[in-house]
Order: sequence, then structure tokens, then C-alpha cells
Amino acid sequence: MKILLNENFNKLEQNYLFSEITRRVERFKSKNPHKKVISLGIGDVSLPLSPFVASKMSEASLKLGTKDGFVGYGDILGLPSLRKAISKRYQNRGITLDIDEIFISDGAKSDLGNIQDVLGNNEVVICDPVYPVYLDSSMISGRKIRLLKANEENYFLPSPDALESKPFVIYLCSPNNPTGAVFSKNQLQKWVDFAQSSGSLLIFDSAYEEYISDSSLPHSIFEIDGAKNCAIEICSFSKFAGFTGLRCGWTVIPRDLPIHHLWKRRQNTKFNGASYIAQMGALASLSLQGTKENRQNIEYYMKNAHKIATFLKEKQIFFVGGENAPYLWLKIPNKMSSWDFFDHLLENFGVVGTPGVGFGKNGEGFFRFSPFALSPDIDEALERLNNLN
Amino acid sequence: MKILLNENFNKLEQNYLFSEITRRVERFKSKNPHKKVISLGIGDVSLPLSPFVASKMSEASLKLGTKDGFVGYGDILGLPSLRKAISKRYQNRGITLDIDEIFISDGAKSDLGNIQDVLGNNEVVICDPVYPVYLDSSMISGRKIRLLKANEENYFLPSPDALESKPFVIYLCSPNNPTGAVFSKNQLQKWVDFAQSSGSLLIFDSAYEEYISDSSLPHSIFEIDGAKNCAIEICSFSKFAGFTGLRCGWTVIPRDLPIHHLWKRRQNTKFNGASYIAQMGALASLSLQGTKENRQNIEYYMKNAHKIATFLKEKQIFFVGGENAPYLWLKIPNKMSSWDFFDHLLENFGVVGTPGVGFGKNGEGFFRFSPFALSPDIDEALERLNNLN
Repeated sequence: MKILLNENFNKLEQNYLFSEITRRVERFKSKNPHKKVISLGIGDVSLPLSPFVASKMSEASLKLGTKDGFVGYGDILGLPSLRKAISKRYQNRGITLDIDEIFISDGAKSDLGNIQDVLGNNEVVICDPVYPVYLDSSMISGRKIRLLKANEENYFLPSPDALESKPFVIYLCSPNNPTGAVFSKNQLQKWVDFAQSSGSLLIFDSAYEEYISDSSLPHSIFEIDGAKNCAIEICSFSKFAGFTGLRCGWTVIPRDLPIHHLWKRRQNTKFNGASYIAQMGALASLSLQGTKENRQNIEYYMKNAHKIATFLKEKQIFFVGGENAPYLWLKIPNKMSSWDFFDHLLENFGVVGTPGVGFGKNGEGFFRFSPFALSPDIDEALERLNNLN
Repeated sequence: MKILLNENFNKLEQNYLFSEITRRVERFKSKNPHKKVISLGIGDVSLPLSPFVASKMSEASLKLGTKDGFVGYGDILGLPSLRKAISKRYQNRGITLDIDEIFISDGAKSDLGNIQDVLGNNEVVICDPVYPVYLDSSMISGRKIRLLKANEENYFLPSPDALESKPFVIYLCSPNNPTGAVFSKNQLQKWVDFAQSSGSLLIFDSAYEEYISDSSLPHSIFEIDGAKNCAIEICSFSKFAGFTGLRCGWTVIPRDLPIHHLWKRRQNTKFNGASYIAQMGALASLSLQGTKENRQNIEYYMKNAHKIATFLKEKQIFFVGGENAPYLWLKIPNKMSSWDFFDHLLENFGVVGTPGVGFGKNGEGFFRFSPFALSPDIDEALERLNNLN
């Protein structure tokens, strides 16, 4: 075969983080077959789906097998009822969105990557460390990348101060994966002001916004004055409704942004809608009963996060997150490297976490704990770690 | 906002086909509120899902609400059980594929478009008329396009004879949408030979292959010698199992093709798997019971197609398709244009079809009928059209 390939793939680093974790855990298990390994590393949820949502999806499935209940192609941009429910959710936070400004997706990850399809060759600003999809999908599109340091000095919340005034495409994630840091309204206002004055676009990833409990913190970029002129928001049912396997999310693109109609055309050309059953489940998850059951799950995980936070405080280990975000991001004691600390926890305590360096160069010396395991496992892990020095 | 946009969107023609059809039908209905309009134009299925498949999806949904049955993130490339079942399906046709060569998607349309992500700036060969996604997604990626005429002389099945020997990316669709024409093994062998000698890549869209009944016709490009060196295949559960709203399909990329590992990386970066429930439904649709129920639906639609074919023969109207493909592609009598014929059928018979010119310039003067309506509607439409001159 002699066709040309996308050479940008050669520039990607081997993204070996999770496969390397798996490899090391498997090696440990084969050497210690009777030792239970507990994971504080997973980004996936572990509690079952809201029974109400499950029953609604079950009903919708059965209906598809009946003459009157069958549904084929739907609106590629999403079920109108679901877009309406999402619009109402924003309304409750004082944000007015037309349903045409809401695009239902098969999850935040797809849209975070595919959005580059409608953009030109802009320089892309990405915080480091962060969720790897922004960097990798921008690299695949051949973009020039500007990394912004997220570190102890800025509490892992970079500001635009270091940027010159030119049009950038800027990915922001709040509550942050992996650091759990959350932008305040003032901090986001600085980003929106910068974007407006420089002609930049903000791509705001709010996948973890349901984990915010402090009422002063913004859930959506559209709580910030001027955001509708310079920002889009990408969100997901994965983490607040347990949809990691079901695949449903949404993207808000204000109608006055020039990329609004490009994205509509992109989706009509290269997408055919999220799965009908997932969308029906998403709709149920926004109902009163669905919301109540999902809240219980979120509280469960946040109790886990609180336990981990208490442990870290007792040990006098510096960390951020775990309060308005599920993840906890800790500074490894004794200047150990991320991977050395990983091995230390695994070999001596049978506990798995995620090495911070896997999320970017600035993550070196840091480590991510996740609260998404079941509570008894969290308790046991922390008990084992009591002897950590 | 001053960021650069993807300028290639400006080159796209306004894809007004289906919106224009809707506009004209609505206008007719408002003028004739008591007249029933029958559609022989739809590309969507109308029969309910196999009840067996529906019940399996219903079960899987309920299980997600239980502690032991919950499933989160799965393998991004697809459920191993589903990939195994698809591999077995190929095995039944004498084609050996490893499950690693099968990538589960959220439908053929996504992969047909997204595949350009892993390709470089090759010239793309597209038959005209054809399913518009090939052209539009290639244009969005800024590719140079070479259109190959599909017409009466070649029975709507272009050969590579007119192409010089250089590496092209070539989209082929068989059974064809919209013409219903099906490549023979010899014809496909010519394409595979050309691709091998020129270093080209064939992207073979086999979404309608279950509608083939003539045992001499190939269902898969991999029935052709040498195809594994130069071809990928993109298929879908939409048309053979009624998954138009559920979204599940698959793409085969032989392991030795250089794009195999690029696609794997692309999917791991910008996709997070097809919906679990849709995949469980797809798996059920490949079981004995699912296959039996889906076959009944296909036979129902093909009986409809047969009725339309008989009608066209009686009227001595030239057509292709409708035999090993659902669609019928007819030459409009009296040299009327595609849109004039559309208006003629709508105004005088209350019947809707699809103007051929909507699928490409060479579709002018042709018209697509679809058999996916319910049989009583097909009967009534043909009765009305009996007075067609």
C-alpha cells in the first residue's frame, strides 16, 4: 500500500499509562497470588446505575420490539426531549440556552477530540497535567501546542497571564481530571476576558461538575459574563449518572459562534446520533427520581473522597481536590518519583493508584487517588496505608 | 472570535436533499390536508426490532441497575464476545479474521467519515451517484476528489479502467445506495487487482450485504483474493437488524495494513466504544433466534422490493437494483428531471420518492424507490401509480 498516512500519529507519545499499570499489577499478582490488590486508581464508576434509569431503558428496549413503539433514525443532533431537559437544567442555574445550542453526543471524549474537525490550524493551549485526550487529539490534527504549567504555586489552576494576546484554542477542565482542582468564578472570568480580548476559543470540559458542593463555585462556563461570545462546553452523563459504558453526553455551542453551524454540518455528515436507549436513559437520569438516585451515588463517592482526604491530612501529605471533585492529587512524600511511589504502594501495601506523570510532565512527583471504588475497599486500603511513611 | 476555522466546510454544497423533500411534502400536505401521502423514499426501516433482540437489551438494561450486573467502561474497540460473533460470521463465508481486526463502531457512518483522520492527503475516488457521506467527509478533510461515473452503460458499477496507476483512496459501496447495483466477484477482483498494483486503499461499504440472495455475489470484499493487502470493510447493524436508532456497526482493518494500528490509536484517543446496550443487542442479533427474526424482516422488505420491481417491469421502465439490494433505481420516463418527477408523483399520486440528482450529478434523470415502508402502503402506492404514464 502506497497511500499517504496521517504522519502526525508519529509525533504521539506511546500512551502507556494504563497498560503499564496493568502490566505491573499483573506481575505483582502472579508473584503474590493470595494477596488482594485494591485499586484507588480507577476512573470508572463502580456503583450500579440508578434502578429508575435502568428500568426506563429496559422499557424503551422492549418497546422497540413492538409495532407502535419502534423508533429508527432520530434527530442526529439529539432527542428534542433530552435537549429540552438539559436546557431546563441550565435554566435552573440561571443560564438560558435554546435547545438548538445543545448537541447530544456519544460522550464527552468523542466531541473533545472531534471538535478539531471544524477548527483551522490554531495554536492549542493545554494545561499540564491534564486529561490526555486534549493533547493527543490536537496532535493528531497537527496543531502546535502550548502547555501551561499547573503546579503547587498556582494550586493547579493556571491563569492566562503568561499568554500573549493572540487567538488560541484553549482547553480548560474544571473540576479537573486528574488534579481535582476547581476554578473559581473570578479565575474563570479572567479566562473569559482573555478569550474575548484575544479572539480565542475556550473549550470547557465540565464532565465532573455534579461533584461540586461549594455553592460559590461555577458548574458551567456560561455562568461567567461574556462566555457566550467565546466558549463552548462539553459535558457527559458518565460520571454523574454512571454512563461510562452507555455513552451519552452533550456539547453546548452558542448560536452566535461561527463554529455553531460548522459543528451542526460536521455531525450531520460524520455522526448519526447517540444510541436511542442511552438517550432515553439520559432523559430518565434528569428526572426527579433519576436525579435523586444519582445524587446518592455521588454522595457515596464523595464520602470515600472525604475519607481519603482525612487520611492525607493526618499524614500531612499535601494534596488538592477531593472536595468539589472526586479526584485527589497528592504530592508524593520524600521526593519519590510517580512510578517509584506506584511500585512502593503496590509492593508494600497492595494498593494501586495513578502516577501523576502519566498526565503530563508537570505531574511528576504527584499521584492521583480516585474515590470510585466501593467503600469497604477504600477503608481497607487506607487501613493498610496507615503504615505509610 | 478570531480563531481559524476549517475552510473546507465552505466548499461543501448545501446538502438540501432531504430537507427539500420535507419542505415540498409539507407544502403539499397543507394544500391537501385530507390526502394521505405515501413514502417510497425513506432509507429508514419501519418494522419493529426482533423481539428477541429487544428482550435481550431489556435484560441487559435491568442488570446495569444491580450490584452484580453493572458494567462501566468496556473495551473501547468493542465487546470481545461481539467481535468473536462477527468473526464467526465471516468464518461461515470462508473468511478468517482475528477479533483484533474487527473494530466495533457506533455505526458505519461515523467510521466512513472518521477514517480520513488516519489518512494523509490522498486523492479520493468516489462513484457518482453514491451515499453522500464519502464525498462530504472527504471534502471536510480537504481531499482532492475524483468522481467516477456510474451510469446505464456500466450498469451503475464503475470499473477502475479509467484510473491511472497511482495510490488513491477509493470508496466502494455494494450493494449500492442509492442504485441497488451489486458488484460481481469478477468486478471486485478488478478493483482489488487495481488497488494492489497501484498501492491504493479500498474502503468497502457493505452495509446492505444481508440483502444479497444470489449466492454467486460477494457479501464481503474479503471474499476477493488479495483484498487483505489493500482493503478495509465498513458494515452496520442498521439495515439488517433494524439498528438505525441504536447505533452499532463494525469496521474490519486487516492487521498487516499500516492503518490498522493508527485506527486503533485514533479510536482509543477520540472514541470510547459503542453503547453497551447496543452492543448487547447486536450480539443477540447474531444469535440463532436473532438471525431468524431479522431474516423475516429482510424477506418482508424484499417482497416489497419485488412488488416495486414487477410494477416497473410492467410499465417498461428501466431500472437496476431491488433484487440483491433493497433500493430500486429507475430511469425517469419522458426525460423528466429528477425534481420534476418528484413533483409529478407527489402532486398527482400523493407518492414520495427520492430524486436521483440528490446523490450526485450523474443521478439526474433517475429516481430512487425504497421498499422499507409497510407492505399495505407499498400496495396502495403502486395501485395509485398504475395510472403513471
